[in-house]
Amino acid sequence: MNEQPLETPLTRLLGIRHPVLSAPMAWVAGGHLASAVSQAGGLGLIGGGYGDAEWLEHELAKAGDSPVGVGFITWSAQQKPELLDQVLAHQPRAMMLSFGELAGFAPRIREAGCCLLAQVQTVEQARKAVDEGADVIVAQGTEAGGHGANRATLPLVPAVVDAVGSVPVVAAGGIADGRGAAAAMMLGASGVLMGSRFYATEESLAHPTAKTGAANAHGDDTVRSSVFDRLRGYGWPEPYTLRSLRNRMTDQWHGHLPDLEENLADERERFQSAIREGDFSLAPLIVGEAVDLIDRVQSARDVVEGVVAETAALLGQGAPNVSLRSGHQE
Amino acid sequence: MNEQPLETPLTRLLGIRHPVLSAPMAWVAGGHLASAVSQAGGLGLIGGGYGDAEWLEHELAKAGDSPVGVGFITWSAQQKPELLDQVLAHQPRAMMLSFGELAGFAPRIREAGCCLLAQVQTVEQARKAVDEGADVIVAQGTEAGGHGANRATLPLVPAVVDAVGSVPVVAAGGIADGRGAAAAMMLGASGVLMGSRFYATEESLAHPTAKTGAANAHGDDTVRSSVFDRLRGYGWPEPYTLRSLRNRMTDQWHGHLPDLEENLADERERFQSAIREGDFSLAPLIVGEAVDLIDRVQSARDVVEGVVAETAALLGQGAPNVSLRSGHQE
Repeated sequence: MNEQPLETPLTRLLGIRHPVLSAPMAWVAGGHLASAVSQAGGLGLIGGGYGDAEWLEHELAKAGDSPVGVGFITWSAQQKPELLDQVLAHQPRAMMLSFGELAGFAPRIREAGCCLLAQVQTVEQARKAVDEGADVIVAQGTEAGGHGANRATLPLVPAVVDAVGSVPVVAAGGIADGRGAAAAMMLGASGVLMGSRFYATEESLAHPTAKTGAANAHGDDTVRSSVFDRLRGYGWPEPYTLRSLRNRMTDQWHGHLPDLEENLADERERFQSAIREGDFSLAPLIVGEAVDLIDRVQSARDVVEGVVAETAALLGQGAPNVSLRSGHQE
Repeated sequence: MNEQPLETPLTRLLGIRHPVLSAPMAWVAGGHLASAVSQAGGLGLIGGGYGDAEWLEHELAKAGDSPVGVGFITWSAQQKPELLDQVLAHQPRAMMLSFGELAGFAPRIREAGCCLLAQVQTVEQARKAVDEGADVIVAQGTEAGGHGANRATLPLVPAVVDAVGSVPVVAAGGIADGRGAAAAMMLGASGVLMGSRFYATEESLAHPTAKTGAANAHGDDTVRSSVFDRLRGYGWPEPYTLRSLRNRMTDQWHGHLPDLEENLADERERFQSAIREGDFSLAPLIVGEAVDLIDRVQSARDVVEGVVAETAALLGQGAPNVSLRSGHQE
């Protein structure tokens, strides 16, 4: 299994076989998922989330000797600066910083010899991240599940590629199969990062009901909102919102946040009870618009290998409905 | 000039050389732009807009004998049902219906032997449009300039392709160069529709200041809003909003529509004066997120030929940063 059908500047930089990364989804991307992705040839990222040191230690231990990375929600991690040393002590293959200023963390990550991935949501942020020392830019579109902002992947990726010179760009948001990955490569990306597709794997820490829910969900039914962040009490700064499946909670409160504030105590109780019971008519099922393309729960290895095979076939054989003709050669 | 580097189900169905359509932008896509696109081998669509019969007649006359199409804003055109007969009398190559129920128009378009393009913003709408007789589905993502809705092109296109069987799918929104077109083809599209890129052509009816503004604009600086529709007094139904460049008008009123209502008379005066003066710090410069990829005002023919050549090169030679290896053949 030393095949490497797709070699890119990203695979060379990270020393990986396949240009496929799993998103560091908070509470969902633990050590088992990350190590399975890395063992399959991609790079798995553990979700540093909101900075629970004990949880992180536990999940890093589960990853064992696999060459995984760790992702931080930057504004949150900056409230617990000791977390970075804790993670760097494990010598992760890469650190991904998202949603906040790199400056506080970037130099120490680079000094530790760790590859710095900066996830951005605008072209301007991409330029700034490169100036601050990012080794890789992850350009994330609004269609992504979980937290994100407003620009869409298809026009964002080529604009970021044009803006950052030789720095490898990874496309994130809206990609869940080889078609999306091949499209991203045509835009100039050197790799893809997928969240939703790995949410619905055997190794993810998502609730079993949420995983099968993701496999059966429709992309028309997601919404980007701050409702769940208010219910969870997470202080997300603007412009970041959370994309999840619409459910009774978002139907009731999205667009009515002041009313939610007035009912917050009761609604939090209802919310936490739903979380405990795995009731996703009220709890958040956090996936993006690409869920249409996910039809079953698989192993992370099957996802990596399947997506890579499909991508390589498309890039090698050409687009499905296009007959190419070279007029000049006739 | 009979080269056809990219043959697809769309080019065969429409009898065109290149799978490139120009969007029927209201007031911007007139007869000269549409005929230039068609003469270059694509299909140009005249913007039927809000149903000004005299304007439409004038622009159809300017298109002369070129095989152009016409696009309707469906909910608006339904208020003037005689418009359809007026347009069909010109025997357009195609009619595109967007933003509303097809049922009132679809049978007469098909009876006239005219190809029916249905622009949709969700997978569910795509399924319904096929049931109602659409010959082609245009799947439009939220990154598009002008009116649109919430789903993004990258995950929407493959989901629509999967949903509509053998009906050709055209990708719209976020595409302004060959990279975006090649990406769309990888997703299973049989063609692309571009608005912003044709907005910034010599033949478009956009204000000269707006065209150069588009060529210099940044995709980070667009916003999807209802502010300009309120100022123009257009009764757009939900969920449709207008993407344009941010300017002083959207900065002031986006997110504050009730306040705008209270000041509507004064603001309309200020707005109309800005339109007359070509002051796009207050008037709408209607382009999408792909403006990063547009750096000059060109002829429509140069746009069509340039995009097709770049698309064919990418599809023929492979993705820019990817070295393909066939492990099985070694």
